[in-house]
Amino acid sequence: MSGIFITFEGVEGAGKSTLISRIALLLKGHGLDPVITREPGGTSLGKELRSILLDPTGSHICPSSELFLYAADRAQHLEEVIRPALNEGRIVLCDRFSDATLAYQGHGRGIDLATVETIDGLARGEIRPDMTVLLDLPHEVGLDRVRSRNRVHQDDSESRMDDEIPAFHQKVREGYLALSRSDPARFFIVDATAEPDEMAGTVLYLVSDAS
Amino acid sequence: MSGIFITFEGVEGAGKSTLISRIALLLKGHGLDPVITREPGGTSLGKELRSILLDPTGSHICPSSELFLYAADRAQHLEEVIRPALNEGRIVLCDRFSDATLAYQGHGRGIDLATVETIDGLARGEIRPDMTVLLDLPHEVGLDRVRSRNRVHQDDSESRMDDEIPAFHQKVREGYLALSRSDPARFFIVDATAEPDEMAGTVLYLVSDAS
Repeated sequence: MSGIFITFEGVEGAGKSTLISRIALLLKGHGLDPVITREPGGTSLGKELRSILLDPTGSHICPSSELFLYAADRAQHLEEVIRPALNEGRIVLCDRFSDATLAYQGHGRGIDLATVETIDGLARGEIRPDMTVLLDLPHEVGLDRVRSRNRVHQDDSESRMDDEIPAFHQKVREGYLALSRSDPARFFIVDATAEPDEMAGTVLYLVSDAS
Repeated sequence: MSGIFITFEGVEGAGKSTLISRIALLLKGHGLDPVITREPGGTSLGKELRSILLDPTGSHICPSSELFLYAADRAQHLEEVIRPALNEGRIVLCDRFSDATLAYQGHGRGIDLATVETIDGLARGEIRPDMTVLLDLPHEVGLDRVRSRNRVHQDDSESRMDDEIPAFHQKVREGYLALSRSDPARFFIVDATAEPDEMAGTVLYLVSDAS
C-alpha cells in the first residue's frame, strides 16, 4: 500500500467538493492522477444506498439502520475503489469517510461512540486516512450556503441531513472538532470561509510535505 | 414484552412461506391475529434493500457489505414491526432472521462467525426468537423446487442466492444444523419433505405448549 489517502470532512455547505476539485487540478498540474471519490456513493451499490440515505422524502430510517447503511457503503467502497487505488500508489481524495460516521451518527444522532467505532472498524478493516482535511465552519453559515444552493437549483431540500434542526448540525461540528483534537497528527483544520484556491494551495503543500 | 416471536429458517425452496401461511390460518381459526413478516423486506426501507440484495443482475456486493445491508434491514424491522408487535402481545411469524445471517453470511460466505454475531447483536439488541422452526431439506431438493418455481414464473433466476453453486447451499444447510445443535431448546427441526398441513399442526401444538 503506497498511495496517499486523504479524506475531507465538514458540515453541509463547508465547500468540500469545490476544494477537492481545486486540489485535483493542482495535482494533475504536477503530473499526478488522483482518484476523486465520495461517501456515500463511490460505487454502483453506493449510489443506490446514497439515494436511500439522503432522499428527504424516502423511507423512514432508524439511527442504527442508517449506521449500517453507511458501513455497507464504506465496505464496498474500500473493496472496489479505495484499496485498489492505494495499492496502485495513487492519491485518493475522498469526500467524507469514517470521521463523518462518528460525527453524524455518533455525536449527531447520539449513538454510543464505541458502537459506531466497532461497526466502522469492521467496515474499514486496516485502512485509515493518511490525512484528514476538516473544513470548519459555523454550522449556520454552512446551512445558509446549502439553502442558497438549493434555491438556485429550485430544490426545497438537498438531502435528508439538511432537514435536521440547527442543534443537530452544531453537534456534528463539535463532534468533528473533538475528533480532530483526539488525532491532531492526522487532522488539518481549514477555515472554510477562506478562498478555495488558498485552501487548496495549503493542502497541496502539506501533501507534498507528507509524501 | 409479552408476544411470541417465531422465526422460520431453511435453505431456498424449503417451503417456509407456505408453512407460515398455513400456521397463520390455523392461528386465525383460534381467534388470534399473528403478524406475518420477513427478512429482508419487512419494512418500506427493507423492501428497497431486498431488491438490492436479491437482484441477480444488480450491483456487485462484497460479503461484508452484504452483511451490513442485512443488519440495516434487521434494525429497521425490529424498530418498526417486530418490537411493537411483541409489545402488543402478538405472535410474530418471521421468514428468516438472525440464524439466516449466521448460516448464509457466516457459514456460506465464510465471514468469521464472531464478526457476524457482533454485527447481528448490534442490529438485534435484546430481541431473540422464542422458537425457531428449521425446515431441513437436502439442498439439492430445495434448489430443484426453486428451479421449477422459476420455470413456472418464466424467471431465469429468482434471486442472487439461487445463482450460488451447490457447495454454497450445502454449507448453508450444514450451518443451520450446527446452529440448531448449539441451541436445541430454541430450535425445532421439521422435515421439509413432509406435508405443509402436517408440519403446521405440529408447530401449532408446540406454540400452544410454549405459550
